Amino acid sequence: MNELEARHRVASAQVARLATTRVDGRPHIVPVCFALHADTLVSVVDGKAKRSANLVRLANVRAQPAVSVLVDHYDDDWTQLWWVRLDGVAEIVVGGAEHEDALSLLEAKYPQYRAMRPSGAVVRVTLSGWTGWEAAAPGI
Amino acid sequence: MNELEARHRVASAQVARLATTRVDGRPHIVPVCFALHADTLVSVVDGKAKRSANLVRLANVRAQPAVSVLVDHYDDDWTQLWWVRLDGVAEIVVGGAEHEDALSLLEAKYPQYRAMRPSGAVVRVTLSGWTGWEAAAPGI
Repeated sequence: MNELEARHRVASAQVARLATTRVDGRPHIVPVCFALHADTLVSVVDGKAKRSANLVRLANVRAQPAVSVLVDHYDDDWTQLWWVRLDGVAEIVVGGAEHEDALSLLEAKYPQYRAMRPSGAVVRVTLSGWTGWEAAAPGI
Repeated sequence: MNELEARHRVASAQVARLATTRVDGRPHIVPVCFALHADTLVSVVDGKAKRSANLVRLANVRAQPAVSVLVDHYDDDWTQLWWVRLDGVAEIVVGGAEHEDALSLLEAKYPQYRAMRPSGAVVRVTLSGWTGWEAAAPGI
């Protein structure tokens, strides 16, 4: 799978998984809705800032900004399996024009966000590496 | 979601995502087919041991055995969203009775493995924590 094809598949996906590293070195993983724009991937935590899963994610990124994002496709026909992993560096964006820009990207993709604009912190990932694999042409 | 319900949902899932920590502290994430047995979750890398994704996963576990596994459900109706995260400690099992036991668990779950028994290293995770979230009853 070349990068153009990988980008197309990621952009078309509704959900990805965001892996971060905890302060003690253990990994942490959550599903995220996201939007892709050039080499930037954005997601937003919901307004319930006290939810521990949100707090963990944000604390992890502040201490270790390297993150990994996975989009994958499962099918009982294993010749149809594929995944794309995006590695990058994350930052937390709260308020201001950059926050608004990220929310606009998410609203453009998800009608659910248009129905109720989120207000929480944005996790913005600057992508540095694309890795794609598919069963039909396993190269990695 | 209580632990019994979380266990049921995980056991019924065909795919999970395995997050590990790289030697340099960055996170790594891959999709895995898996089998759950009591407090143990097993997966197997395919026979193509030189595939870099396999090598990375195994090297990570050897250096930092703490891993995190995610099973999630996406639906355009966001009131139906849920996820279960399993944290634990992984070890690599190659050969011997424990390797056979893990493969038998995977074959019992997946006809695809029965059609072609895998031969690669098993990643066996001893689970220490279950965290479940669902949109219909967000408690975390």
